Amino acid sequence: MNTYKTFDEKDFEALAQIVDRERLLWKDEIKEEYSHDELSAEAHYPDVVVRVLSTEEVSKVMKYCYDNNLPVTPRGAGTGLVGAAVAVHKGVMIDTTLMNHFLELDDKNLTLTVEPGVLIMEIYAYVEPHGLFYPPDPGEKSATIGGNISTNAGGMRAVKYGVTRDYVRALEVVMADGTVMNLGGKVVKNSTGYDIKDMIIGSEGTLGIVTKATLKLIPLPKKTVTLLVPFPTLKHAIDTVPVIMRSKVIPTAVEFMEREVIMDAEEFLGMKFPDKTADAYLLLKFDGNSTEEISGTYDDIAKICLDQGAIDLFIADTEERETPIWKTRGAFLEAIKGSTTEMDEVDCVVPRDCVNTFVEYVHQVREDMGIRIKSFGHAGDGNLHIYILRDDMNDAEWKKNLEGAMDRMYKKARELKGLVSGEHGIGFAKMSYMGENYAPEKIELMRGIKKAFDPKGILNPTKLF
Amino acid sequence: MNTYKTFDEKDFEALAQIVDRERLLWKDEIKEEYSHDELSAEAHYPDVVVRVLSTEEVSKVMKYCYDNNLPVTPRGAGTGLVGAAVAVHKGVMIDTTLMNHFLELDDKNLTLTVEPGVLIMEIYAYVEPHGLFYPPDPGEKSATIGGNISTNAGGMRAVKYGVTRDYVRALEVVMADGTVMNLGGKVVKNSTGYDIKDMIIGSEGTLGIVTKATLKLIPLPKKTVTLLVPFPTLKHAIDTVPVIMRSKVIPTAVEFMEREVIMDAEEFLGMKFPDKTADAYLLLKFDGNSTEEISGTYDDIAKICLDQGAIDLFIADTEERETPIWKTRGAFLEAIKGSTTEMDEVDCVVPRDCVNTFVEYVHQVREDMGIRIKSFGHAGDGNLHIYILRDDMNDAEWKKNLEGAMDRMYKKARELKGLVSGEHGIGFAKMSYMGENYAPEKIELMRGIKKAFDPKGILNPTKLF
Repeated sequence: MNTYKTFDEKDFEALAQIVDRERLLWKDEIKEEYSHDELSAEAHYPDVVVRVLSTEEVSKVMKYCYDNNLPVTPRGAGTGLVGAAVAVHKGVMIDTTLMNHFLELDDKNLTLTVEPGVLIMEIYAYVEPHGLFYPPDPGEKSATIGGNISTNAGGMRAVKYGVTRDYVRALEVVMADGTVMNLGGKVVKNSTGYDIKDMIIGSEGTLGIVTKATLKLIPLPKKTVTLLVPFPTLKHAIDTVPVIMRSKVIPTAVEFMEREVIMDAEEFLGMKFPDKTADAYLLLKFDGNSTEEISGTYDDIAKICLDQGAIDLFIADTEERETPIWKTRGAFLEAIKGSTTEMDEVDCVVPRDCVNTFVEYVHQVREDMGIRIKSFGHAGDGNLHIYILRDDMNDAEWKKNLEGAMDRMYKKARELKGLVSGEHGIGFAKMSYMGENYAPEKIELMRGIKKAFDPKGILNPTKLF
Repeated sequence: MNTYKTFDEKDFEALAQIVDRERLLWKDEIKEEYSHDELSAEAHYPDVVVRVLSTEEVSKVMKYCYDNNLPVTPRGAGTGLVGAAVAVHKGVMIDTTLMNHFLELDDKNLTLTVEPGVLIMEIYAYVEPHGLFYPPDPGEKSATIGGNISTNAGGMRAVKYGVTRDYVRALEVVMADGTVMNLGGKVVKNSTGYDIKDMIIGSEGTLGIVTKATLKLIPLPKKTVTLLVPFPTLKHAIDTVPVIMRSKVIPTAVEFMEREVIMDAEEFLGMKFPDKTADAYLLLKFDGNSTEEISGTYDDIAKICLDQGAIDLFIADTEERETPIWKTRGAFLEAIKGSTTEMDEVDCVVPRDCVNTFVEYVHQVREDMGIRIKSFGHAGDGNLHIYILRDDMNDAEWKKNLEGAMDRMYKKARELKGLVSGEHGIGFAKMSYMGENYAPEKIELMRGIKKAFDPKGILNPTKLF
């Protein structure tokens, strides 16, 4: 366990030499939101928040912290769910949200270069009018790209297009000691030495601070179609997914949802969902360059769904019809959160053909324990989001039930050869569920890697392992 | 610089306790091919070659070598071009070519699990009858998948589908000390701790030995069409590529080639190429699920090519017509090799819109130096293959001209923000061209990473850096 210097007035004055006073938040100036993220129970105030404007500032702040052994927590929009952006050791928080500029859209190399504080929804709005597409599609559109890179965010379109990692061509990173490093390039291939870029991606701010990212774009599909498919049971719905995959046609997105979650979202949004007669639904998206190209695909899949027992098929092929469906889907997390007093989540990922086994197990846990658990998720990529709700439990009951449910679910995920996190990360909150990911030889390797990047261990300490 | 134990009879006897005697090659049993790879000038015999059959054997051999400080060079089919599989410190060579079994084709999760000695061409032949597709398409089809993972091989379809890295879901790796580690899983998303898997990929055998790989497959496109497009000059051909990219349609492959290289290949293969009236050609491939789907795409691109000055257009939409074209393209390396006494190559990658600037520079170098230089390459992904030919130069002339030409070309690639290797790796032969990739802070970081994986530095020493 490292020990760090305690932040004091002298440190504050030193930082005030690097960034303008109004971008340094100290003591009462630090708003409550900086003490926690979107979901995890961890809450700690940093000693100071530095609202950086440039790579140079990040570099100077890091050099000062490194020389003075001060812990640093990088933070984007604070939309994380596992406490990765919470300053558990206090110290310096580097807030990147003011570094929110678009630097270059290169339509010959199909890349976009941005600062880390640019929001995902801003990227879509920026590139799509140019006929270009940034495929990663995490539910939380007001997250920063820096945060998405730090967690290797996934999202709904991962089935067809992959995750954030697949769209990062180059990074500028400030290392623990303030050194600025450029990794990768505007190039499509790279076999030039160790893949340091991919080690930074998903490292949750423990190895370096991303100050610039060059993203790969692809041509924007000209047409999308959504299929909403009601099934008599969730089992029917989820069991259909491997059959779809085996048919050799890959939809853009394949989500599963249950009526109760849809109703939460309807209430939350004050908006009507096109159908809620069935217990369970698959929601599929297809994209392509023409209606003909897509219809060839979804006709096949519609047939598979009906063969597998689907009750009906709703086709949404206009923006007016698609929007309410995906808006409802997008509101699930907030809607479930609004339906209880507190909650925590499981974000595991299992092989696609194990999703049904896992969801049936979750139902069993819910029944055995007599607590409310809600779930939805990415059936097409095996990434589930399961929420354990506190409702009116007292502290002791909540602790016991939460730990009990989590332990059982992560154990089951391991049995199915799944992993702890599909897209939300490990941060602080999920470390106790890492199990064999923390085998002694892996811990030693991770420590060695951490030491190579951050010899003093000042970057986002006590996160990941 | 590490010093290693010298391999002796005692070591040989210890290894003979681990693997059968007939799979240990010693002294005169070591054939000449084990002393070099396909191209690089480096030639060194290992002290012993161990033809392993299982992960357990690799683990035991590594443990012995680690405990006894013996250097180890992993080797697949030996088709590399940069000396990565040459035992420059002698010691133990682990030959994985007998670990060549298909372990599982999972058509629900669309994955293929193989041993490292399976050849790329065997993978295609195995999965395609199942309607599945492994997109990475390096020119050398008789390379092993283990070798492809170690160099992060790319190939011609990278424009549309990406490189080897994008298709590795999970790896089993034997670490320097013999520990077996499982990285990743049959899952589509992963945000579970440091991305050790991607650090192994492209590390050229310096961080661990891949003993099993689970690859991502996708549905096999039902139809492909090839367009061969003659242009009056190479500049016309290459300048057309960014215009194609900007049109928001991504072909499967975009290659450029010059008449002289086509003629070398015709001679090498004893086979006629459909056209050689023009100085330069673009070769494009398109794939999709129906002729209609593809024709929408290639009609647009054919029009762009004609607008950019193409002389003609040859459409090859049957296997009979496509095969000779791609077979010729596939023979370029061997054909150029056959046209001279010795050669060395540049495998740099530059942003797509800089390919023409780079190729014009190469022509300038050729003219200035009065030596033969031939090139072809992946115009769609900016990865060039440039061959400097020795012909009848004496040793001193060859050394001077080779170094002079290489220095100038790598310097130009850096100026254009390119990288040293697109797909062949750094190995031993390209280390002297790494330039700013070897800035002191990067070297220190790479050393730290290497130390975390291989504290004694026994794995493939003096490679990469």
